[in-house]
Amino acid sequence: MGKIICAGLGPGDPDLISVKSDRVIRSAKHVAFFRKKGRAGQARTIVKDLLRDDAIEYPMEYPVTTELHFDSEEYRQLMVDFYEEWADKLEALAKDHDLVVLCEGDPFFYGSFMHLHTRLQGRAEVEVLPAIPGMVGCWNALDMPYTWGDDVMTVLMGTLPEDDLVAHMKAADALVVMKTGRNLPRVKRALERAGKLQDAWLVEKGTMRGQRIAKLADVAEDDCPYFAIVLVHGQGRRPEAAE
Amino acid sequence: MGKIICAGLGPGDPDLISVKSDRVIRSAKHVAFFRKKGRAGQARTIVKDLLRDDAIEYPMEYPVTTELHFDSEEYRQLMVDFYEEWADKLEALAKDHDLVVLCEGDPFFYGSFMHLHTRLQGRAEVEVLPAIPGMVGCWNALDMPYTWGDDVMTVLMGTLPEDDLVAHMKAADALVVMKTGRNLPRVKRALERAGKLQDAWLVEKGTMRGQRIAKLADVAEDDCPYFAIVLVHGQGRRPEAAE
Repeated sequence: MGKIICAGLGPGDPDLISVKSDRVIRSAKHVAFFRKKGRAGQARTIVKDLLRDDAIEYPMEYPVTTELHFDSEEYRQLMVDFYEEWADKLEALAKDHDLVVLCEGDPFFYGSFMHLHTRLQGRAEVEVLPAIPGMVGCWNALDMPYTWGDDVMTVLMGTLPEDDLVAHMKAADALVVMKTGRNLPRVKRALERAGKLQDAWLVEKGTMRGQRIAKLADVAEDDCPYFAIVLVHGQGRRPEAAE
Repeated sequence: MGKIICAGLGPGDPDLISVKSDRVIRSAKHVAFFRKKGRAGQARTIVKDLLRDDAIEYPMEYPVTTELHFDSEEYRQLMVDFYEEWADKLEALAKDHDLVVLCEGDPFFYGSFMHLHTRLQGRAEVEVLPAIPGMVGCWNALDMPYTWGDDVMTVLMGTLPEDDLVAHMKAADALVVMKTGRNLPRVKRALERAGKLQDAWLVEKGTMRGQRIAKLADVAEDDCPYFAIVLVHGQGRRPEAAE
């Protein structure tokens, strides 16, 4: 009887994987990972120099990514079938041996593996190894302290309605906006309305090859990088010399 | 001419340190770390099995922790002097050799090293190595997905006024409350007023020896553990089989 181990990979640089995840990945005989159809897959790319030569790979290819709206019935059904199929497959595979599932960022922080984790409860032994979330890699790439003192920090998805974004942006000191991509123009408008556009950074491919850092205000309207996070730093309380 | 490297340690389990931080710590000849007077220090305790036998240690002892209120002039001046003194010392030490500064959690996320980082700009080469924030270790300890879909996630400090806590708690889906300790009774009242107390968890010493997990509602009024985080999970959008 084997175990399913979901190994968090962190923001992208393989050197930022935890000692534990690194050890588990290097010794894995059976390795599953999510990817878009026809792509190598971000998770698989991160571990390319870590995997054993004789590792057996199980690419879990999303049936759909952005072609259908995530609120549509067709999208819901395709994704439900996909996760149920792979929960069945992983359960079956884990009857004979350990199986490592790769997951970018921290698995429990908006991660795809969570959909398998819930479905596998009571059916297989599942262990999740935490990792540095992508946003942490991104604020580290900016090389500036991110939150101070009693700063309120809020994480938002670019998929939210503009008015909701504005309200949350106004209420928080430090911000992270994920799932930017085609939502970036709305995110930008919302930050402008909240009076925070001039303080916002765009970090694309944080900690990875091709990393790009830009002031969000300088990013062109039609520039919607997929793997990008928007950050606004907190400026909270800190002991400083009196003026 | 040496370099100052701030090595993020993550939530507490040394196995959760990044491969890069682990390597830097194991090879360090000069190691600085914060601690309370008369204590071993949390950061130093995490790396006790990693340090070289001949490592030279520089404990940076806080002149004050909770004896004075953080808003008082006396507190401000003591901390300013403390950080300026250590910025000078680290700058001098780094003239001759590399120096590693240990930092619990992720250094740029409410970390003490940030006060040295700002003061050392232009005076020494400084590199910060990211790590798994303490809160990520805590939600991992609960072994449940933390945020889904377009959940709004907010991080709050228990030091905030109760009404502010309530407003932010109502607006967010997933919550983290740090700096609980003696603020825990107020945090609990705020969660009650926001209708979220029944969903809140207390994680003390997450991923470390002595880890304790409790429903916050079950925690006694006079039980204010110092090294504890309060968590409320998001319950956002996810593709599920139709009912």
